[in-house]
Formats: sequence, C-alpha cells, structure tokens
Amino acid sequence: MKKIRVAVVGATGYTGEELVRILADHEDAELSYVSGKEDRDIKIQEIFPYLKNRVNLECKAFSVEEAIEKSDLVFLCLPHTVSMTVAPLFLGAKKKVIDVSADYRLKDKTVYEKFYKVPHKDAVYLKGAVYGLPEINREKIKTAHLIANPGCYPTGAILGLIAGVRGAWLDPSSIIIDAKSGVTGAGRKAEKSLNFSEVNENFKAYKLFEHQHVPEIDQELSRASKKEVRVTFVPHLLPVNRGILSTMYVPLLKKTTTHELIAVYRKFYANEPFVKVYENGALPELKHVAHTNFCDIGMRVNEEKKLAVIVSAIDNLQKGAAGQAVQNMNIMCGFKETSGLR
Amino acid sequence: MKKIRVAVVGATGYTGEELVRILADHEDAELSYVSGKEDRDIKIQEIFPYLKNRVNLECKAFSVEEAIEKSDLVFLCLPHTVSMTVAPLFLGAKKKVIDVSADYRLKDKTVYEKFYKVPHKDAVYLKGAVYGLPEINREKIKTAHLIANPGCYPTGAILGLIAGVRGAWLDPSSIIIDAKSGVTGAGRKAEKSLNFSEVNENFKAYKLFEHQHVPEIDQELSRASKKEVRVTFVPHLLPVNRGILSTMYVPLLKKTTTHELIAVYRKFYANEPFVKVYENGALPELKHVAHTNFCDIGMRVNEEKKLAVIVSAIDNLQKGAAGQAVQNMNIMCGFKETSGLR
Amino acid sequence: MKKIRVAVVGATGYTGEELVRILADHEDAELSYVSGKEDRDIKIQEIFPYLKNRVNLECKAFSVEEAIEKSDLVFLCLPHTVSMTVAPLFLGAKKKVIDVSADYRLKDKTVYEKFYKVPHKDAVYLKGAVYGLPEINREKIKTAHLIANPGCYPTGAILGLIAGVRGAWLDPSSIIIDAKSGVTGAGRKAEKSLNFSEVNENFKAYKLFEHQHVPEIDQELSRASKKEVRVTFVPHLLPVNRGILSTMYVPLLKKTTTHELIAVYRKFYANEPFVKVYENGALPELKHVAHTNFCDIGMRVNEEKKLAVIVSAIDNLQKGAAGQAVQNMNIMCGFKETSGLR
Amino acid sequence: MKKIRVAVVGATGYTGEELVRILADHEDAELSYVSGKEDRDIKIQEIFPYLKNRVNLECKAFSVEEAIEKSDLVFLCLPHTVSMTVAPLFLGAKKKVIDVSADYRLKDKTVYEKFYKVPHKDAVYLKGAVYGLPEINREKIKTAHLIANPGCYPTGAILGLIAGVRGAWLDPSSIIIDAKSGVTGAGRKAEKSLNFSEVNENFKAYKLFEHQHVPEIDQELSRASKKEVRVTFVPHLLPVNRGILSTMYVPLLKKTTTHELIAVYRKFYANEPFVKVYENGALPELKHVAHTNFCDIGMRVNEEKKLAVIVSAIDNLQKGAAGQAVQNMNIMCGFKETSGLR
Repeated sequence: MKKIRVAVVGATGYTGEELVRILADHEDAELSYVSGKEDRDIKIQEIFPYLKNRVNLECKAFSVEEAIEKSDLVFLCLPHTVSMTVAPLFLGAKKKVIDVSADYRLKDKTVYEKFYKVPHKDAVYLKGAVYGLPEINREKIKTAHLIANPGCYPTGAILGLIAGVRGAWLDPSSIIIDAKSGVTGAGRKAEKSLNFSEVNENFKAYKLFEHQHVPEIDQELSRASKKEVRVTFVPHLLPVNRGILSTMYVPLLKKTTTHELIAVYRKFYANEPFVKVYENGALPELKHVAHTNFCDIGMRVNEEKKLAVIVSAIDNLQKGAAGQAVQNMNIMCGFKETSGLR
Repeated sequence: MKKIRVAVVGATGYTGEELVRILADHEDAELSYVSGKEDRDIKIQEIFPYLKNRVNLECKAFSVEEAIEKSDLVFLCLPHTVSMTVAPLFLGAKKKVIDVSADYRLKDKTVYEKFYKVPHKDAVYLKGAVYGLPEINREKIKTAHLIANPGCYPTGAILGLIAGVRGAWLDPSSIIIDAKSGVTGAGRKAEKSLNFSEVNENFKAYKLFEHQHVPEIDQELSRASKKEVRVTFVPHLLPVNRGILSTMYVPLLKKTTTHELIAVYRKFYANEPFVKVYENGALPELKHVAHTNFCDIGMRVNEEKKLAVIVSAIDNLQKGAAGQAVQNMNIMCGFKETSGLR
Repeated sequence: MKKIRVAVVGATGYTGEELVRILADHEDAELSYVSGKEDRDIKIQEIFPYLKNRVNLECKAFSVEEAIEKSDLVFLCLPHTVSMTVAPLFLGAKKKVIDVSADYRLKDKTVYEKFYKVPHKDAVYLKGAVYGLPEINREKIKTAHLIANPGCYPTGAILGLIAGVRGAWLDPSSIIIDAKSGVTGAGRKAEKSLNFSEVNENFKAYKLFEHQHVPEIDQELSRASKKEVRVTFVPHLLPVNRGILSTMYVPLLKKTTTHELIAVYRKFYANEPFVKVYENGALPELKHVAHTNFCDIGMRVNEEKKLAVIVSAIDNLQKGAAGQAVQNMNIMCGFKETSGLR
Repeated sequence: MKKIRVAVVGATGYTGEELVRILADHEDAELSYVSGKEDRDIKIQEIFPYLKNRVNLECKAFSVEEAIEKSDLVFLCLPHTVSMTVAPLFLGAKKKVIDVSADYRLKDKTVYEKFYKVPHKDAVYLKGAVYGLPEINREKIKTAHLIANPGCYPTGAILGLIAGVRGAWLDPSSIIIDAKSGVTGAGRKAEKSLNFSEVNENFKAYKLFEHQHVPEIDQELSRASKKEVRVTFVPHLLPVNRGILSTMYVPLLKKTTTHELIAVYRKFYANEPFVKVYENGALPELKHVAHTNFCDIGMRVNEEKKLAVIVSAIDNLQKGAAGQAVQNMNIMCGFKETSGLR
C-alpha cells in the first residue's frame, strides 16, 4: 500500500519536532515536506541529529505552493492567528489539514476574539472544523477535512472530566482545575521568563482565570453537559520539560464511592487505546505518560463532602499536541489508530 | 550581653542542617551542642564544609545529659514519636524546648494517634505546648517553655487562609488546598521513591486526603473560625529542593473584590516582619521566598463565582521549619524577632 | 517467521525496564518471561503503566527453571557477582545469554577480583565470552553464545577513542577521559547520596582513578593499540536522568588538523548504523542522543599543542546498556541490526 | 562609624541582583543608588520581593551624574565593552570603581581586541587597574581605585592552580581545564539556547578553545610562573542555576604524593578566609559552595603518571562575581574582609 505524503509546516518548534519524530517511523505516512524558521535551507536531520538514518529531507522556508504540491495531508504548527490565513489554501487544494494552533477550536468567533485579541478571519472553514479529541468525536474525525487539534491543557482536563459529566455524576457548575505544565508547553521561545535559571528551582501560578485554554474547556464541557459551564482554571509552570498533570475538584451530583466513580470511567473509556483509568484510588504521575500518547486518569471520592478529586496526566507534546495530531490523521485516513504511536 | 547556649539535636537532617546554618551567625545565640546520626564523632564543619570558619563544634551521638549540661535552649529535630520521649527530660531540667516534630502540635491525642499510629506518651507537657506560629500566637510564645513548631504545609496554608477566615470573609466549610512541595520536605532519607531519577522530570499527587498535616490545619482553622473545619488537602511532590506553593480555593461569604480581599490581608499582616501580601492580583513564586523566612501571599477573586483563589509560598526549610523555629526562639528569649533571619 | 522468545531477568531496575520497553515492540522477538524483585507477582504493565496494551506478562520472582523453559535467549540484568552464578545454567541449557553486568567483561580474572572484590567463579565461560561492542566485535558477536554487554562509560569512551587509536593517530599512553553521567547510571537504589535533594543543583567528581570501568577501557584500548594502555578516568555525577558525555584529551602522534581527524573517524564508522561523527568541529550534546541508541562523536584539534579534544555522547540506558544489548541480540540472531531500535 | 555609600549600576542582572542581596545587609556599606534596565522607575524591593524590609530604594534608568552624586564607590555590572566608557567618568570624579565586566582584566589590549572584537577605549585607566583576586593581589587591592573583578571561570581555575604553579610543583605548559558551569553564568538573557527545555536534561561542551576567559587564565598563570602559559580550556553548560566545578589535569614537575601536594596548597592558603583545601583526597561538590564566597579545592596525584588532578568549586555569582566584588570592596575600604560575606 502506498504511504500518504504528509507535510509539517513549522517543524522546528517543539510540536513540529515531535511530529517529525513520530512520522519518521510511521508505517502508513511518509514525511514529504517540512518547513521551519531556519535562516537557510538545511536538512532536518542536521537540526535534529537523532533523525539520522531515519529521515532525509530539507527543511525549507515555508512555501504554500510547494507544500501543496508535495503532500496529501498537512500538519500546521504555526502560531495562533497565522494558521487561519494558511489553512484555507490547503483546503481549497483538497488537502486534509490538521491544525495544531487554536484557530479552529472555538466555535464562537467572539470568544476567539476576546482571548486571542484579533478578529477571526475564516468563518467558512471554522464552521466545518472538527474538534480533534478522538475520545468524543471519533466518528466526525473519520470524515473531516479540517481538524482543530485540541490544546494541551484542554486535552488533559476534558478527558479527566467528561466521563463523569456525561453521565451526570459530576456537577459541572463548580469545577476547579488546578493544572501544572512542563515548559515545552510554552513553545521554543527566546524569553527571559523561560530561561533555565528562572524556571529551575521555581514554581508559580500564572494567567489565573485568564488562560486562553479556558474557553476551549468550557465549550466542550458545555456541549457534553448541555449546560453553560465555566470552569475555574489555574495553570502553573513546572520545572520539567514535558507533561501536564491536572488535579480537579468536582462536587458529585449523587452519592458515589471511589469504586463506583472509577467504574463509570472504566466503562466510558473501555475501548479507548490511549486512555488508562487507574483502579483502587491509585493516581497517575508524569513519568507514567512521558513520551507516550496516553492520558492516565485516577480519582478518589470524599464521600462526606460529596467531592471527587480527579487527577489526569498527559505528555503535553504527545497526547497534548503531536501524538494526538497523528492519532487524528490515523483516524481520518483509515489507518490503525495506534499506528506510529507504539 | 551574654549569648544563650543552644543545642540542635538531630543536626544532620535537612531541618537540623538549616538550623545550624542560621544559628552559626546568630548575634544572640551560640551553638553549644549538636548531635547527629553519624557513625563517629566528627566536626559539624566537616559534614557541612560551608560552616568552616563559622562554627567549630563536634557532632556527637546524642546524649541527653550532655545536651542538658551544655545548653539553655534545645531544638529537637527528631523523628515524630521520638520527640515526646525526650522533650520531658529537657523541660524537667528547666530548659526551653522547640520541637520541630509533630509530637506536640495536635491538642487532641486521639487525632494524633489516628495519624501517627502510636499512642501519645506525654499528656502532661502536651497541654502546655504552644503552637509556634508567631502570626497567631505571638503573646503565648513569649512565655512558653515548649513550642510545637508548625509543619511546613500547615504554615503556608494557615497563613494563606487565616486572615480571611478570622474576618469571616472566607467560608471555612469548603476549603480546597492544592499544595506542591519540594523534596527536602520528605527529609534526608534513603528511599527509592526519592531517588533523583524518580523525582526529576516527574510530578505527582500523594497521600490524597490522608496526609498527616491535615489535622493540624483543621485544628488551627477551627480555632480561628470557631467552627469545625475539615479542609480538602492534596499535596504534590515538586522536582525542586526547596519551597511549598499552595493554591487555595475558597468560597467567599460576602460579595468581595480582589482589591478588598487584599486590603483585608494587608491590614491583618501589617506589622508582621515575615509575611508579604502582594498587591493588584500579583502572585508569589517559589524563587521569591527561597532561602528566606518570608511567607508571600497573593490572591484574586472571581466575583461571579464568589470564589477566592489564594496562593501562598514559603521556603519549607525556613518559614516551614528551621527559620520559624529561630523566629520562635527570638520571641521566647526577647531577642529581636528577625535576628539571624536577615 | 516465528519470533524468538526472550527473558529479562531483573526487569525492574533501570536497564531491565529499558529492555522491556524496547522488546515490547520488537518485530522479531517476543518477551516471554520477566522477573524482578517485587514483593508479589504482579503484571509488568502495572509496574510500568506505559506498557499497557503493549505487554501482558507477569513479573515473577526469579526462577532459573522457568526462565529456561520459557525462553530462547536471556538478558541478565543482575548485580555484578551474581550474574556469573546464573549464566552457566542458561548456557548449559543451550540458551543464548546477554549479560549486562560486569561479570564477563574482563578477561583477566585478577583484574576482576581487584575491582569487584570477589573471586571470579566462572573461568570456563569467561574464556568464550564476547565483549559486545558491535563496532569492534561484530563478527564474533554473530556466533557468540555469551555476550558481555559493555559498561556505559566504556561504550562512550571506547567509541570516542578507538578510531584514532587503531590508526595510530592518537597516543594511547596519555589519554585523559573526563566523563559526566546522569543518575540512572547508578541504578534504582535507595541511597541517601542519590536522593533528589542531594543531586539536584549539585555536581561532583567521584571514584577518581578508582572506578570499576577503568580496567574495561584499558583492556579494549590495549587490544586495539597493541600496547598496555592505562587511561586517566574521572567520572562525575550530572543532575540529569540519562546520558553520558565524555570529554577526552589525547595527544596526537602525527601532525593532524581537525578536518583530517574527523575524516579518519568518518571513514572508520562509515557503515555503522549507530555512530554519528559530526563535521566541522561541531560537538554532540546529551539531548541529541537521549532515548536513542546512537553514539555521537565530535572533535577539535589544537594543532599548536598537538592535542585532540574528542567529545562523545550516549544515552547510558540505550547504547550504554539496554539498547546495545538488543543490538547484540539482533546480530546474534541474524535480525536486522536496527530492529526495535528505531 | 559612617557607612560608605555604594552604587550598583546594572542591578537587575544576576550579578547585580546578588550584589544587592549581599549589600542589603552589609554592616559597613549602604546601598545608595541602583540602576537597571526596567521600563520604568520601580522600587528594587518590588523587583526582588525578598528584599522587602531590608532595602527601600528606587531602581532607576542609569544616570552617571546621579550615581556619582549619590555614591562613594560603584560596582559596574555592565556588559563588556560598555564598562570602559563609563568607568573613567567615575574615576575622574574620585569614586572607587569595581568593574565586574572583562574590560579591565587583560593588560594586553591586542588580546582584548582579539577576544572581544572591539578596540579597547581606555588605555589610561587600564594600566592602573588591579586584577581583583585577593588571594594573589591583596596588597595592591588595598590601594587600588579601579578593580577588574575576575571572571567566574578564571577565579576557580586560577585558585585551583596557582599554589602549585608558584611553587613549581605543577608544569604550567600542559594544563588541561575541564570546566562545568551553571546557567546563571550566561547572564539573564532572552535566548532560545538558554530556555529551560533546552538546558534541562541536557549537557554540552561549548566554545571549545575559544572562550573569552582563556586569555585571563593564561595572563595570570604566566605572571605566576614567569613563563608563557597557554592552557587547554573546555567549558561545559551544567543544568544547575549556580556553581562552577573545574577538573584540572596537570603534569607534576617533581615526584609528589597526594599528601604532599595537599600540604603545599594548605600552606599557601593557610590564612585565606575564603579558600578551603580538602584533606586526604576528598573532593569538593557544588553544593558545598553554593550561596557562599568559598573556593573549595581538592586533589589527588597519580604517582605512576606523575599527574595531578585538581578539582575546584565556587559559586559563580559569589566568589565568581558579586561575592568577590564585595570582598574587594572590603579590602579597598579597610573593612573586615569577610564583612557581608557571612
């Protein structure tokens, strides 16, 4: 069977790099075009030496025409607000697009504009874009042409909450999400506050109540609960490279034990290849999911307070970005869903 | 003026080491006795080379008699359940005692026994022990003979909550404390789970609902609010050496703005030498308090949800242990409260 | 084609875990037996949750009989001095053995006894054991029954030196190796000095002149140069999980430029799938080799001083242990040499 | 006695911050002026919250006139090539100057120009500048008006070598310095390569043979040995905030034991308040010197090879920069040499 040809636009950021790493060994897809912000044309395997003997491809200044010519499907790893100027060109040329930016995630343009501070420029394709969280949208992904790949924080939070919200076990009106993310989540940027000496031996909350991932979580939980949900979301910066661990505090709508709530989750995710629900109140750790596409979930119930504490863990570059993007590609293209993801 | 002579029993753990470091340069106190678990008698400045030229003292196997003979005040850095067998001997010999273990913190013996799994052995002195949080007990500390030095988690949590609980701004019945601690909090132990390779690039919650510091927080908040308080407390292990950052979620009892709540805190702590309340919704970071005796507090209110998010940060070995112990000594002995603490 | 059945004895240490991780997805080998030091029988995928859906195998207390019955080839991840009591049993049962301990690496028993402080107990098989560094012993590995898998430090050092030593470019009599290793190199041990708080924000040299890997480096460089070589070797402990970077200082025997020396290395390793020689004086970094089986090598010559500085980098758990062990298996069994190693 | 008034020009970089931290509690000096690159006038204790209650001073845009008016002595924490345009103004106004940049360290202007790529602009004051390493230049420092505060790498390397070079124990013609530095050594910069995710879990050599600190080491060792010395110097970037550990390989000129060489060093540094020489082949670690002004030195001799391995450790921001600058101030001003440095 012939492999499909895939392009990675923006291959030198962390998500782009992770995509190239995964696609280098994918059995059904072939990396056919990569672009980046390097000063000069350079082989991608020289930028990332571990690719030697696995990929042989020039990393070029981005050209839409060349990318269209050389690929059947394109991953857009471009900054927010840039993706929506480029995606229509690929879609117009009948290419499949998986956008890892935020540009097609929020269905309500006014919300997008509030959080990203620019008007949305592509109402047409926004409408048909599918939110690429396979665990809730697998059927739609199969036939989608444009995937809005979920944000890293929303992936961990939504997967940790939705099983309980759907079955009306959890009260969606008072959700608290205390999230902690590794530094690659901020991208490969020159910024003093991301300097090693500022982050190492440090820990802090940031963008309290204001993080741009909040409306994405609200949107998906509202859809699931059929109520208007507004979560309390506090992200923190962890001195690790990879991983997001979210500790979530949610009132229970019914009297429930730890055991019962776990059973609800295990049933909900029974057929999911990339979600693991822990038994007996065991809780996930970042190292359990590092470099994997898994979302691990554990929980305990305080029966007296009727409160569930749910902990989810993902690798922000895998299930939180590149891994999930490849999972989406696999579903869109009819490949084995775990292909390339071990 | 003659310096008082102080002993540090258990000087080779992290808290003991930090005490020795602080006391080495204290203007009113002189280190006169240190004991540790070393195999042989060895100078303390050989164990901790940075003490050279500052201290010249042998670190010995612990002898109550020698410690009593050589000191006026003793810091007990012994394991929980051991302190209460030793403290009475010092107190009987009219020495002042500052116990950094948990043995004298919980007024209710049955609670102690539930969390520490052994019967309490010293009902006599337990009764008179003063919980050594200067910000709430300064007057009692002045005349105390036995100080129960607070736990690290409780110090950050109580200071972050009590100003709001006292004034009835915060609802004490639904407090959620999501706490993150550096690794020295676990002590200097040989334990696989504390191995660098297990903690580095990792992050996890642990002892969910079960941490032994919970009853200490409950006790002090109950006292302050005159209600029975039971907090939801989830500790996490951070890959840093020092520091505890606690993110606390508390419903407001009255309609309040960020600005108003900050004003309440600033007034409450106006004369405190070691508490800083941030303005304008700014939030503390671990690096702001590392190697200091400060507790930094910041907060924001979600008016729509009537919810306060309060963040406190301390250095777990300073304000969370040794620094606070020295602050207590300063108060007990009539020294300047900031002496030795910069 | 039927997969061979492989056993991992000692699967819960770092090297054993890495072996299981690699073998879980190997196309020609099937994990058929794993043993570890757990208190009870437990599925290996419960110990290492990322193995879920990839492996389904009980981790048992070690039984030679069961391991022999269930496997065609066995990886021994046992402590030094234990391997040599077990390997003969497998070899006697006609199983192939890859020993990752040091027990079969040193041909001279007196040297073994000097460094490991116990008499060697298996002269018979020691004689036929092949030192499993494919880049110098590939032909012998093909037909070997017992592989002594090289130590982590020796792998990086020997690969960084041997191309120059073989061609008589480098003077083997004055080699200085300044090596820096991540913490997994010390194994999964409960030991205070490996506690996160002791290693993080720290760096130190250790076992100066005395490290047990010295005789292994000496043996292989002596063999290559046909002279008695004694290197100066100083290992250091790096606050990272994985990786060894060795900076080597070697006098040149002939007038040579950086360019010429690189050409020598590139020719020597031209057909090696897992060695990369950098051009133009570029130097490797740990992150270039992390989680790969590559050894990356860079160098520069100081012509005035006739001195070469050669830097090699490996992942200590991959090329320095488990990855190389699988590479050896691939060669012994006639599989593709890169199979399972990306 | 009246305190002298001191200015810190460039107080928001790492060295400037450390200077402010030290000077905040200095008994003989008073911080009277600080400038930085902030966008607006802001209290220095708001930039660095741990200064609260210790300093109350505005951090301003730099004005020479104001700095001259408000201070008796000035610390210049300005970029290389900028200091030499500013220092003459202070010196002309009869202020004492301690320059922590490289501008006055190299006596030979052509060497400066080769390494810093600009012509030197202040031949006049360069001539009288004193290289501020107290252990070798204390007498000159006492009467100096302009101190060239040594570089961080040179401080650790020179102190580790000079005792042996002076007494003709070490052969200065073949010195190899393998140095490893924490990240604050690179300054507080927005630079991708210093991003946490690039440095954490990584390690690399850099600027091999080309580091700008090489000529400084050569100059001082040449002066000490009265021979033209050219060291081989390879710096590496360590994933820690603070500290430099240098492992140095030096041939011995005479038959010497570890014990004898240590005795030479202990005698040489017998009266030094900030140098510790370890006994019995013990070696320093970064954590022994972190946050102190000490230089710790340990060594072992390989008698067979007539080679000494000497390890020195400093805190790059203390003895390698700000601490040493304060030590120089103390000597220049007749204060106790250890004042402010614990």
